[in-house]
Amino acid sequence: MKSSANPGDLVEVHLSKTIYEGTLLESSEKGIVLLKLDTGYNIGFNKKDILEIKVLKKASLKTEKLEIKKDFQKPNIALILTGGTIANRYDSKTGAVAPLSSPEELFKFYPEIFEIANVAKIEVPFMKASEDMDYKDWQKIAKITKELLNDSNIKGVIVAHGTDTLHYTSSALSFFIKDLNKPVVLTYSQRSSDRASSDAALNLKCSALAAISDIAEVMLVGHGSTNDDFCYAMPGTKVRKLHSSKRDAFKVVNAEPFAKIFPAPAGVHQEGARTSSRPANTESGGNRIEILREYNLRNNKKVKLDLKFEEKIALLKFYPGQDPNILNYYLKNKYKGIIIEASGLGHVPALTSKNSWIPILKEIVSKGIFVGITTQCIYGRVDPYVYSNLRKLHEIGALFLEDMLAETAFVKLGWVLGHPEWNVKEKMLENISGELNDRLGG
Amino acid sequence: MKSSANPGDLVEVHLSKTIYEGTLLESSEKGIVLLKLDTGYNIGFNKKDILEIKVLKKASLKTEKLEIKKDFQKPNIALILTGGTIANRYDSKTGAVAPLSSPEELFKFYPEIFEIANVAKIEVPFMKASEDMDYKDWQKIAKITKELLNDSNIKGVIVAHGTDTLHYTSSALSFFIKDLNKPVVLTYSQRSSDRASSDAALNLKCSALAAISDIAEVMLVGHGSTNDDFCYAMPGTKVRKLHSSKRDAFKVVNAEPFAKIFPAPAGVHQEGARTSSRPANTESGGNRIEILREYNLRNNKKVKLDLKFEEKIALLKFYPGQDPNILNYYLKNKYKGIIIEASGLGHVPALTSKNSWIPILKEIVSKGIFVGITTQCIYGRVDPYVYSNLRKLHEIGALFLEDMLAETAFVKLGWVLGHPEWNVKEKMLENISGELNDRLGG
Repeated sequence: MKSSANPGDLVEVHLSKTIYEGTLLESSEKGIVLLKLDTGYNIGFNKKDILEIKVLKKASLKTEKLEIKKDFQKPNIALILTGGTIANRYDSKTGAVAPLSSPEELFKFYPEIFEIANVAKIEVPFMKASEDMDYKDWQKIAKITKELLNDSNIKGVIVAHGTDTLHYTSSALSFFIKDLNKPVVLTYSQRSSDRASSDAALNLKCSALAAISDIAEVMLVGHGSTNDDFCYAMPGTKVRKLHSSKRDAFKVVNAEPFAKIFPAPAGVHQEGARTSSRPANTESGGNRIEILREYNLRNNKKVKLDLKFEEKIALLKFYPGQDPNILNYYLKNKYKGIIIEASGLGHVPALTSKNSWIPILKEIVSKGIFVGITTQCIYGRVDPYVYSNLRKLHEIGALFLEDMLAETAFVKLGWVLGHPEWNVKEKMLENISGELNDRLGG
Repeated sequence: MKSSANPGDLVEVHLSKTIYEGTLLESSEKGIVLLKLDTGYNIGFNKKDILEIKVLKKASLKTEKLEIKKDFQKPNIALILTGGTIANRYDSKTGAVAPLSSPEELFKFYPEIFEIANVAKIEVPFMKASEDMDYKDWQKIAKITKELLNDSNIKGVIVAHGTDTLHYTSSALSFFIKDLNKPVVLTYSQRSSDRASSDAALNLKCSALAAISDIAEVMLVGHGSTNDDFCYAMPGTKVRKLHSSKRDAFKVVNAEPFAKIFPAPAGVHQEGARTSSRPANTESGGNRIEILREYNLRNNKKVKLDLKFEEKIALLKFYPGQDPNILNYYLKNKYKGIIIEASGLGHVPALTSKNSWIPILKEIVSKGIFVGITTQCIYGRVDPYVYSNLRKLHEIGALFLEDMLAETAFVKLGWVLGHPEWNVKEKMLENISGELNDRLGG
């Protein structure tokens, strides 16, 4: 198989029965030809299977001179880039990515955001895929966020982040940042900026509108549907990634979004959105924010941090037939707390049989290890009073964490255990940042 | 606190600020008064906090003479009771439960089902909360199901089961039963039969209609919404419990339901539903089945079983910062296969750092342990070609399991590994019973 095709070219890959069209990428795997399809997915072909690679359009080599339309009438916002699809510029020649680290570069890829606000500062603490992050990264993001929130020139902060663990980071910022005074907006992109179908532009426009709004909350802002027309501003402790690839990957769980955000369609006259008095909706220059629930109002407090974190914590999903001996692993390795994703209303096997989890859980709790119960159903709450099996678990000292998401409970547990002076059970059931919702219907 | 109230009485519990109304239950916990609220939840009070328990209505002591309207014009179905809320009669005096083990008892609690079909056989292999079940229970259910399916007097089989692990059992039956000839319907109840809001009646009526239909599939049948008006017939390998307490707890994931089932409202003339030729909808006596997709048609094959199962398998959910050393637990304990609930498109940490999962996963795979990758997003698919981190995982021999649910993958892995003569990777990616869905949109 010979071909004049180069990375970046639009090509047809001819197999014996099928033809694929897409942009040729540089492949790091020997013997593999990598193609970026129009759907945004990459597909790899074994070179042996390819009959021909036909070039439809050579990669263009144009370079552009950048000019940012700076408008000092517009509010200033700050952007923290941490990695993930949204924070990278994608090189269509190599398939390689590199961070967008200056306002000029950002403007080249996402000019829309500048129609709403001046991106006055860009901070890049690190560039990581979100699955590689841990609590130390959450702490770094929180520190920079605090500095920006306490800067009187900045109206709000956007954190651009990979999607995979974004809901863990939004939970962490919700607990780490005290006396929140301005919007903290976490956003993402499921598809890279080189694609016509990229979701980054809408998410960034929505995020800019959220960042200059009056909603002083830690929010995850992103597509509200698979259409490119509005976003939800979702509470940082009540949100979860629930689709591996769709644009509206994140869903609010056991709560309501703060707001729906409708940016003006492209071409419509736009200007920086006004802030409004609570809880009225705002509408300005075609941009519209529809408030859906109560929120913490923008204020003049100085933000403080509480970054303490205990790293010896675990999240454990129960499955039927699971050997409870797995719990001894955590005991032996000196873990301080475990969040169990139990079944249904908070069940683990509680029969007097070899697979009962009760004896070992009792031992763990008696040794001072915290055991918190959440549900793998995701939606709904755990409740120790419905069945006698649940009461057994409650009686030995496991704590039922109401309607708290397992992921949020995991992050909160690390933060709570970071404070040895606190009563862990009391603190876990104290609603610190919207992680518990009493008003949830059954 | 003194009171003349007895278990079973409708009472008011007066606390210092609040009054709760409900049915008094027998409490096994000393010092605790247990009340069943109208919402169906039980609530426990510390006796010290109670000012007064006021009896509103004494428990009735009536006994009823039962008479089943047997109608030999109606088709015969069989019912397998395995436990859970639906399979028990609830004694309002004691709060205790006992299995419904005869057609007479079943008729007392669920007379509606007899308007659709004769429940000709009731089998009770065991009575277990579903969180206590494992693959041996799945095998027992499959054996009884096979006998009933091969009985020419029986048109279809209903399995009544606890909700918590029902989707695991429905997957297991999907793999265990070969040459399926008739409907196998798994159903449940989220709320006990003593409650006005119980979901059992609708679920059983829908299940009876499904059991006499032409849909020869393993189906989970239950509420399609929080209203009491229709059910979905959901594919056994593509369904998951996604709410801890709502009636429509089960959702189809990455697929479509087989059908919507609308039983005739109470009071409307009803009769056994006709079977129809595929894929037309059926409507009979106010009962209606709306077909939504292709299905395996009722036929005259003899059902066979393939119950082999390897029990040394695990399901492991990844979380950020997780120490990959947990994988050594499975290695040491001689597990044969692991399904990882990875993040997003199938990620685990793959950086060259102390927390990379790649070296230990490589070791595990090289020792012949199967590693399968699914997504904790639940919706969507995993894909090894989008990011280079994913390709690393693919290269070391982990298998990306497309859009298969983690729970289904876990059950399938046990079944596949039960056959040492099979090629595990090939079999895991072979669509045995609808567990893979190529037509799923991105």
